[in-house]
Amino acid sequence: MKSNDEKVAIVGVGHSKFGKRLDVSINELGWEAIKPALQDAGVTQKDVDFYSLGNFGYWSEEILPAVTIGEYAGLSCGSLKTEAACASGSASLKIAVDSILSGNSEIAIAMGIEKMYNSPNGTIIELIGRAGNYFWEFENFGMTFPGYYALYATKYLDAYHSREEDLCEAAVKAHHYGSLNPYAQFQKETSVEECMKSKYVSRPLKLMDSSPITDGAAAVVLARGDVAKKLSDTPVFVEAQGYASGTAYMGRRDDYTGLEASRRAAEAAYRKAGLDGAANNFDIFEVHDCFTIAEVMAYEDLGLVKKGEGIQLLREHQTYRDGKYPANLDGGLKSKGHPIGATGISQAVEITKQLRGEAEKGRQADIRKGRGLQHNVGGTGHYAYVTIYSRGD
Amino acid sequence: MKSNDEKVAIVGVGHSKFGKRLDVSINELGWEAIKPALQDAGVTQKDVDFYSLGNFGYWSEEILPAVTIGEYAGLSCGSLKTEAACASGSASLKIAVDSILSGNSEIAIAMGIEKMYNSPNGTIIELIGRAGNYFWEFENFGMTFPGYYALYATKYLDAYHSREEDLCEAAVKAHHYGSLNPYAQFQKETSVEECMKSKYVSRPLKLMDSSPITDGAAAVVLARGDVAKKLSDTPVFVEAQGYASGTAYMGRRDDYTGLEASRRAAEAAYRKAGLDGAANNFDIFEVHDCFTIAEVMAYEDLGLVKKGEGIQLLREHQTYRDGKYPANLDGGLKSKGHPIGATGISQAVEITKQLRGEAEKGRQADIRKGRGLQHNVGGTGHYAYVTIYSRGD
Repeated sequence: MKSNDEKVAIVGVGHSKFGKRLDVSINELGWEAIKPALQDAGVTQKDVDFYSLGNFGYWSEEILPAVTIGEYAGLSCGSLKTEAACASGSASLKIAVDSILSGNSEIAIAMGIEKMYNSPNGTIIELIGRAGNYFWEFENFGMTFPGYYALYATKYLDAYHSREEDLCEAAVKAHHYGSLNPYAQFQKETSVEECMKSKYVSRPLKLMDSSPITDGAAAVVLARGDVAKKLSDTPVFVEAQGYASGTAYMGRRDDYTGLEASRRAAEAAYRKAGLDGAANNFDIFEVHDCFTIAEVMAYEDLGLVKKGEGIQLLREHQTYRDGKYPANLDGGLKSKGHPIGATGISQAVEITKQLRGEAEKGRQADIRKGRGLQHNVGGTGHYAYVTIYSRGD
Repeated sequence: MKSNDEKVAIVGVGHSKFGKRLDVSINELGWEAIKPALQDAGVTQKDVDFYSLGNFGYWSEEILPAVTIGEYAGLSCGSLKTEAACASGSASLKIAVDSILSGNSEIAIAMGIEKMYNSPNGTIIELIGRAGNYFWEFENFGMTFPGYYALYATKYLDAYHSREEDLCEAAVKAHHYGSLNPYAQFQKETSVEECMKSKYVSRPLKLMDSSPITDGAAAVVLARGDVAKKLSDTPVFVEAQGYASGTAYMGRRDDYTGLEASRRAAEAAYRKAGLDGAANNFDIFEVHDCFTIAEVMAYEDLGLVKKGEGIQLLREHQTYRDGKYPANLDGGLKSKGHPIGATGISQAVEITKQLRGEAEKGRQADIRKGRGLQHNVGGTGHYAYVTIYSRGD
């Protein structure tokens, strides 16, 4: 195993307010995340050797956001943009981490951003829908993302004798923690009743089962371990990442109650980190809850529980802060918001804050094992990235 | 310095026919590059640990091309798409190389692709134009890429007492070598006279000063050095990459006779490789000639000659095969074609073929130093990537 000095650590985090951000340009929104991240790390732009940006942005007017944000933020180091659909943030993290592990950088920034309101380039739901399978499913059947996840929800509810009310428990949890997170898009509680009364988006999924359209940005400053210990008393190490790709064409998937790419990515991450799975090793989880059903599948795909038992975790509130597997204590994609390219980095920021003990009142997990697990999906399992963090103690 | 076993080497290359490729889908076009690359490396899809795709693609119907191409090609490993404008291919190479150097992969594919004809999403020149500076220059002044490079050409021709005929020499060279490259979009010679008679696109640049709209794909299989020597008798090592970003806003540039980002990227590459610059160290050059003026600036920004002397290299035919600095013996962007996301990988394929001694008749350089230099620009110097290759002997 690598020593802490040879690993890569997060030494600074920054997070914009998520929500409808018509008050800022994409460059200004980026700076809202980069500025606090640099300050938190105690470094300046000149110290940064590389900069990667996760962004989907097909609806954006600024077609080279990595450059315009870099220019606005005073970063003239090498840079690139990456896209892995809703896992773009995790891809950005991978690129920045590898850039350091390779010896090509000492300090790098991984960032993610999305401006989804005020899209000049057509209907955003249509453009997101193309990220399923354009040729077969979008063009022929008009599939968009609520429809894709509704297929999974229909199959899951039927296979495991679950009810829409059970799924709503995920929304209730998300909004509870979102109400405690000052950066969240929705800072208000909800209830199973309210969720059940919300309109259907694609049966059986309702508005309250769905993550919103969001503008937002998040950034982390990464450093090689030996540099990190000089910069920070509380470095959070990126111990391992696992990644896998699934088919774009849903008709080719074997299973509609989980995502095979998530399972393969998780296995790879545990193997690289030398861990025996998720159940006994983590204090805090961030899972990709673009829809409530996605959170349930994540519990199972990560191996917290067996297939069909994820819904039971929700029913028993086992993924609340004081449960067995605290998950999405920041409000998750559902309540914190889901600015596509930013989500993976926002999850990294949250796990860092949790492992440092810096989460806001009422939503700080009890940290005993010193490890956190991040699960980030692109598309409907087109991409899966699973990342393991630790305090290195 | 690293031993060859610790470096990353190209062990397989693949290149599609460049041109107007309405005969294939983007997935089929991708396979045209991946299949020969796998065969050349003697590996199968299962051996590949990671896959990166360089693609610009704002005009594409397939919005997750890394996934659809990966699915079509049988690659289910982790993947991502990257964009660094016209340097997307070099960014893809960086990601795949770093993925191996970091210890996260043993074998990876770096690929690039672009389908530019048959764009369903609006006028392609408009969309490329946005990659300048949307807010100030595109929206207010209607700037597109020929206009941007025409500003550079105007300044250069005036500052260094050069003529449009001199620039046309770059086009003549490009078409000469393009005529010898079976993968090139244009396989025919041209002349200074023909170039001078072609219509102005943006004064002083004419149609024959400009690279074309192109569909194409290219792929390289990369392996860790110790693995590479088992797979290939002729590995080509990626010795070093330098990268830098310039401003998006051209009004902020200090100099309009060269690209500052190119100069900084080149210096970083030479420093990392332990070389004293470009003039005495390379057998073969690939430079980013999106317009003829860009090739002249590249000669100077890379340090082959002093400022103002690049035009003299063209006049004296010093960058032909038998000259002092053989450059773009594949036809360059001008004649081989410029499928944006593929260009950086196409350059890597060409340098590999040259260093292996496998270029087609009439365009194989004399290889004595065993090193090649690649220069790839995104935007108008928004991104610059400079990569050094060697046979490692």
